[in-house]
Amino acid sequence: MPSETTAVPRAAVAADRADTARRVLLSARTPDSAATPVDGVPGWLARQARAGDFRVTPVPFAELRGWYFEEGTGNLRHESGRFFSVEGLHVHADGLPARGWKQPIIVQPEVGLLGIVAREIDGVLHFLMQAKMEPGNVNTLQLSPTVQATRSNFTGVHRGRGIPYLDLFLERGRARVLVDALQSEQADWFLAKRNRNMVVEVDEDVEAGPDFRWLTLGQLLRLLRLDNVVNMDTRSILACLPTAGASDGEGSAATPVLRSFHDPSAPARHTTAEILSWLTGIRARRELVQRRVPLDEVAEDGWLRTAREIGHTGGRRFRVIGADVRAANREVASWSQPLIQPQVPGLMALVVKPVGGVLHALVQARVDVGHLNVAELAPTVHCRPADHTGPGREPFPPFLADVLAAPAGRVRYDAVQSEEGGRFHHAENRYVIVEAGEDFGEDVPEDFAWLTFAQLTELLAYGNHLDVELRTLVVCAHTLY
Amino acid sequence: MPSETTAVPRAAVAADRADTARRVLLSARTPDSAATPVDGVPGWLARQARAGDFRVTPVPFAELRGWYFEEGTGNLRHESGRFFSVEGLHVHADGLPARGWKQPIIVQPEVGLLGIVAREIDGVLHFLMQAKMEPGNVNTLQLSPTVQATRSNFTGVHRGRGIPYLDLFLERGRARVLVDALQSEQADWFLAKRNRNMVVEVDEDVEAGPDFRWLTLGQLLRLLRLDNVVNMDTRSILACLPTAGASDGEGSAATPVLRSFHDPSAPARHTTAEILSWLTGIRARRELVQRRVPLDEVAEDGWLRTAREIGHTGGRRFRVIGADVRAANREVASWSQPLIQPQVPGLMALVVKPVGGVLHALVQARVDVGHLNVAELAPTVHCRPADHTGPGREPFPPFLADVLAAPAGRVRYDAVQSEEGGRFHHAENRYVIVEAGEDFGEDVPEDFAWLTFAQLTELLAYGNHLDVELRTLVVCAHTLY
Repeated sequence: MPSETTAVPRAAVAADRADTARRVLLSARTPDSAATPVDGVPGWLARQARAGDFRVTPVPFAELRGWYFEEGTGNLRHESGRFFSVEGLHVHADGLPARGWKQPIIVQPEVGLLGIVAREIDGVLHFLMQAKMEPGNVNTLQLSPTVQATRSNFTGVHRGRGIPYLDLFLERGRARVLVDALQSEQADWFLAKRNRNMVVEVDEDVEAGPDFRWLTLGQLLRLLRLDNVVNMDTRSILACLPTAGASDGEGSAATPVLRSFHDPSAPARHTTAEILSWLTGIRARRELVQRRVPLDEVAEDGWLRTAREIGHTGGRRFRVIGADVRAANREVASWSQPLIQPQVPGLMALVVKPVGGVLHALVQARVDVGHLNVAELAPTVHCRPADHTGPGREPFPPFLADVLAAPAGRVRYDAVQSEEGGRFHHAENRYVIVEAGEDFGEDVPEDFAWLTFAQLTELLAYGNHLDVELRTLVVCAHTLY
Repeated sequence: MPSETTAVPRAAVAADRADTARRVLLSARTPDSAATPVDGVPGWLARQARAGDFRVTPVPFAELRGWYFEEGTGNLRHESGRFFSVEGLHVHADGLPARGWKQPIIVQPEVGLLGIVAREIDGVLHFLMQAKMEPGNVNTLQLSPTVQATRSNFTGVHRGRGIPYLDLFLERGRARVLVDALQSEQADWFLAKRNRNMVVEVDEDVEAGPDFRWLTLGQLLRLLRLDNVVNMDTRSILACLPTAGASDGEGSAATPVLRSFHDPSAPARHTTAEILSWLTGIRARRELVQRRVPLDEVAEDGWLRTAREIGHTGGRRFRVIGADVRAANREVASWSQPLIQPQVPGLMALVVKPVGGVLHALVQARVDVGHLNVAELAPTVHCRPADHTGPGREPFPPFLADVLAAPAGRVRYDAVQSEEGGRFHHAENRYVIVEAGEDFGEDVPEDFAWLTFAQLTELLAYGNHLDVELRTLVVCAHTLY
């Protein structure tokens, strides 16, 4: 009989999500902390950026060190076989021509780790955030998770070496796991990419290195009100924090948003079983057939490769470019890499409405070309407004007009946030939360449904249910209370 | 503002899984019913088989009507572009050579529907089962779900036409949904294949056609004790029935297996959050990189194509063959198709053990070449014993020796069941549930974990967590009480 240590030791994981939710709520209600006064954070980021001496320069593909277009396929690959590749994707889906559609796609099948270390300071959960440079960031540095690691960092003989704090995620028993789920990233640009999103809590006095600061969730929510400070990976992880069970109603003081996040017995328009059945039905009925093809084949659908970019002749989609990166404080002092550059910004809007005294979010089950599992829940509006304005453009998607016409008093959250700067160049989206007016009906098209925020944060425990843009809006919605 | 009917009407889905669980338990405890006396079922199946006049004949690939090896790839496809294809799969995974491994694989990206209609008769849930012929069945007919439909059956203009009872699954509001989740099928042979598993309950008096019979779960459990009567699709769906909350302990009369299935407050060795974190860790750490390649390329790894089969020179794996099918009572009177034929039977064994008065099942997180999401929970032992016996064979996998040496008194379930006869030719596996002895430790290797049956049936609500072999053993475990 094998007698090795079991891999699921009882003490390794926070047993009680409701207890975590209560402590998360306390942290959210702590708007500042002596550990790191929040007003100093933007200045600290700016100083770190100056000290880091980062330069990102667009270069022709031929000048990308280590990258090459593979013979016979045209796939853009790294000579080590590591990192990622840009290949072609042939997709058949509802709404596309019968012969399908070919486009460039980032292929990165390995699962990476995005992890935040948490610790109670003066009885309040603080999160260890990193000032981290990414080549695609408009402002060089943003607040990033404690750890971003690739699979090769956390497997094999060199596991964890050289990456600060990674051992806290790998050595079970050193920390309690508060969040641990595989979540998707941009399915427009990535083929079935997932990262492991984790929060682990330590009791020991972990020292914050020079690039790190301890912040409460309340401080992070204040920084989320600013443009481009809290990076995508951080938003993705924080969205996964449990909230259900933090309170059982809070009596008459509870507002619709507090009930929605924290009270699992608050009446929801649909049960979770109903929501899962609805999503299952869409995943079964919608067509999404994906096949990797040589990147050379995307030319058939209007993608042109020049010395400096792969772009679409129709414009307004995205292009693949090359960048040369010089940085002082990264593991490697300089490198080259391809980046995806969107041509126009997106609008990600969540319509919310109190139903029976509980705030509900209107989400859509959205099919994107790169999804692992056909469809995931997405914001009410997930589009590029430029696609829908001016002559010859596509019709408005549902609810775009409502969002654009919402009076200022109903716009509860509005900021520009960046997508992952490690892969995307200056990819900014406007994130908006709009409270629906009285006349906004609860009957919605069949791809849409009303969920409470507790239902959303519980689905996040299972992974691959909410897309990365909706995860951003879930964490932004914490700013509403 | 759109005012279409919402797609998630509140009354369409059974709101209360615990209520369903209570009614499922009552049905499981109803070992016979006047609606269809169970002793008559095997004879009815035999009579239907004789009346159907089915003939299945292996034929050379050249004689498969409508199927052809595609120019340039060698992929085996149907000229309509429908059904499925046999292609090559190039896999990189832990334990394989660094250059990976190429093998034939069935590609069927569309999600099909496997549905059972349920109805209370004399206050007890009955399930409408179909005597259905499949070409690969060793015994022609087995008890199948009410409906098996492909995506083209339930989308487009001809939706539902010609398939009895399909409208009950498609027209929301006609039936309550008791089960609805996407579940995987054999990941050795299928690339990321899933089917939508559904149970819907009707109140109206639905007539059972000549190929159909109403049976209680208790009757189905008695038939599950027999070899090859209850088909794989039926087992898969029944495993998804909710069980948690059927009782809150049943006082001192409760046995470890009843507590395990029905009492959600029964102490489990690990919380569900711990289990999800453990599975997430394995999905992140293990390598599984899949790429579809031309079927011609599998020759590089020892697969040989002759006029009648594609087989591996090393034997003992599987082969692809062609079959000609003549049947009187199918939608189409005769057809041809490829089938996968395993060379040796498998052994699927679940070790169970009471821990703290609650029966726990020992499951592994298993990586198979075709998985959508790297790993799923699988039986304790999932192997072909012939691979591990005799000279030059592979070492025993964990716990195989324990299962093979278990005294008869500890073997709680033991029957031969068939895998899907629509794709697999004479694919039989031995399914066994073994109660561990006192000396069987609870510490297990890192890919294994102990779960209660309620934890397993709750995970089944989210889809793609339990493989099809473990789903069979979950429904077989209902026979233990």
